[in-house]
Amino acid sequence: MNNFIFQNPTKLVFGKGQIAKLTELLPDNINLMLTFGGGSVTKNGVYDQVKEALKGRNFIEFWGIEPNPRVETLRKAVKMGKENNINYLLAVGGGSVLDGTKLIAAGIATDTEPWEIVKGGVAKEQIPFASVMTVPATGSEMNGAAVISREETQEKYGFFGTYPQFSILDPEVTYSLSPYQIACGLADAFTHVLEQYMTTPGQSRLMDRWAEGVLLSVKEIAPGIKHNPHDYDLMSDYMLSATLALNDFIRMGITQDWATHQIGHELTALHGITHGHSLAIAMPGTLRILKEQKKGKLLQYGERIFNITEGTEDERVEKAIEMTEQFYRSLGLTTRLSEEGIGMDTIETIASRFNDRGDAFGENSNVTGDVTREILISCL
Amino acid sequence: MNNFIFQNPTKLVFGKGQIAKLTELLPDNINLMLTFGGGSVTKNGVYDQVKEALKGRNFIEFWGIEPNPRVETLRKAVKMGKENNINYLLAVGGGSVLDGTKLIAAGIATDTEPWEIVKGGVAKEQIPFASVMTVPATGSEMNGAAVISREETQEKYGFFGTYPQFSILDPEVTYSLSPYQIACGLADAFTHVLEQYMTTPGQSRLMDRWAEGVLLSVKEIAPGIKHNPHDYDLMSDYMLSATLALNDFIRMGITQDWATHQIGHELTALHGITHGHSLAIAMPGTLRILKEQKKGKLLQYGERIFNITEGTEDERVEKAIEMTEQFYRSLGLTTRLSEEGIGMDTIETIASRFNDRGDAFGENSNVTGDVTREILISCL
Repeated sequence: MNNFIFQNPTKLVFGKGQIAKLTELLPDNINLMLTFGGGSVTKNGVYDQVKEALKGRNFIEFWGIEPNPRVETLRKAVKMGKENNINYLLAVGGGSVLDGTKLIAAGIATDTEPWEIVKGGVAKEQIPFASVMTVPATGSEMNGAAVISREETQEKYGFFGTYPQFSILDPEVTYSLSPYQIACGLADAFTHVLEQYMTTPGQSRLMDRWAEGVLLSVKEIAPGIKHNPHDYDLMSDYMLSATLALNDFIRMGITQDWATHQIGHELTALHGITHGHSLAIAMPGTLRILKEQKKGKLLQYGERIFNITEGTEDERVEKAIEMTEQFYRSLGLTTRLSEEGIGMDTIETIASRFNDRGDAFGENSNVTGDVTREILISCL
Repeated sequence: MNNFIFQNPTKLVFGKGQIAKLTELLPDNINLMLTFGGGSVTKNGVYDQVKEALKGRNFIEFWGIEPNPRVETLRKAVKMGKENNINYLLAVGGGSVLDGTKLIAAGIATDTEPWEIVKGGVAKEQIPFASVMTVPATGSEMNGAAVISREETQEKYGFFGTYPQFSILDPEVTYSLSPYQIACGLADAFTHVLEQYMTTPGQSRLMDRWAEGVLLSVKEIAPGIKHNPHDYDLMSDYMLSATLALNDFIRMGITQDWATHQIGHELTALHGITHGHSLAIAMPGTLRILKEQKKGKLLQYGERIFNITEGTEDERVEKAIEMTEQFYRSLGLTTRLSEEGIGMDTIETIASRFNDRGDAFGENSNVTGDVTREILISCL
């Protein structure tokens, strides 16, 4: 096990009716701005619940943070926040609204241009912020990361260092999600775990078991959710799995990968493919091309997640990769670029971009533009 | 899944050589008191490492916090802290030193008599404190709980609400532990998980998996540690398992039990049996007497932890309980009261104490004095 430092200060407030706790969770005497996406919260009742809980408090509202939040939009929110002396933010929405709010919080706290904060990689200061989540997906509700897009340059990067003060997760608010949103969320949670798990084996028995615990939970609940997306227990497991998949709990003292995310971000930036869906396409490709490097963990994963115990090692590795792709397909997602009308042009664009920048992603820093080309060709 | 609120603010600083980070982890301009046990830290090199890391800082030292820390001792530390305007504590030792330090921190912060704080159940105020751990065992390094004994009345109670600012865990400092200390630590971690896991089944797939992940890890490392207690990776897994067994991570949204701990505390209070060892005796008894109530979870546990898949349900339940006792014995611990020279007198004392107070412990509040008598008779 490697040395590590772990700290996650976020308060998780989970369950039915917890939005009503909002006003007691927020400090008194704050200048509050609420941040929202495109308006789905007005349809699923969350906006009304939040307004009810905040009765008697003053706040302003910023609307319009889009999926894959754009710095161009967030700059406007930073400006509005500064003009109104805002010193506390409450994100009401999904992972994109919260990710965007993290940059707004950092932008309000400094004079640094927001895109420079993103490029800097770590936000050094931010005003406090919290969230009411409507979509379980990104783990953003309990981690320090945010991913921001820049439309002008079709770029998408993550930055770190920004934990919410608290996040309210009420599984009942997920009942209004579309089957596609749910599928993408499940794919996202599953892939988040794989990025932290599918590395050198034998680093930590316990982190392996916890990662596998999330994978098994997501795999077990997926079929039930598909047929009954209003089952409270299933949606609770889903919402909590999504949070625990990416809140630092399963990556203590171990190496990580994240090459698939880098590739997925490009598919999103260039073609607008939803984040979780982009991962469902890229992850099986990463496993196919890096199967020798990841052999030890693929064998363990195959056995513990899919009960693959028969055949040669190579056969079991192939089967584990095949079952991974089948799992994503079972959610109702496509897993091939051709199914999304994406071909060699895009592959070459991404490969060139990585090669030009000298990028080399993944646990062993060997996923270059050329390796990415191989990965994406295997996804055609 | 039940509604829950989770927050754990403690910073975990884990790995080789991390004690050297001490001075940068502590705030500047504090009045610091270090707290210790009986002196083992002077033999295992930890005291020297701490002194080296604190070079240039002023601090005072309080020595002599005993195993199962006594309020009588801790009152002296509170007095010393108040007289010296201490506003930060650093516990250097095992779970008992840290538990005692939690009460010292609460005692210094208020005028309330320390035993009244314990009896109150929750510390409302405390001065900040941190720890350098030498024994993985209790989870106290990353939770808000402490268990304190009162010699005058042979009582032992827990109180809550006191999280360390940070805890430094260096697996190398465990190399000097005795085989008995290690065995008790492993039993302690294993039982901490069972107290949170062996309840109504089907509350949370994910919490089940994570609890099982700790159980499997402890079970896997135990034989290796017995034969090679200086294996860094094994001791890392052990130390981290002990922390994650009781830092709130595996009990989100679920019911808990803790009847075994109440019974174990009595064995410790009356006979001085080491905490982990007392649990190794009491837990199999609790399972034997409550096997109908815990049947569903015992079947799941038997299958997932001990691969028990053959036989009738009743046979599998019996086998799971038998394997649990065997696991404790495999650590080198006795599991029967008679092996420790304890007989019916003690059993009646404990049963009367619980009955007189009207105690009813466990998930279903049905472990009364009379049920405890049955449990302990089954442990003779």
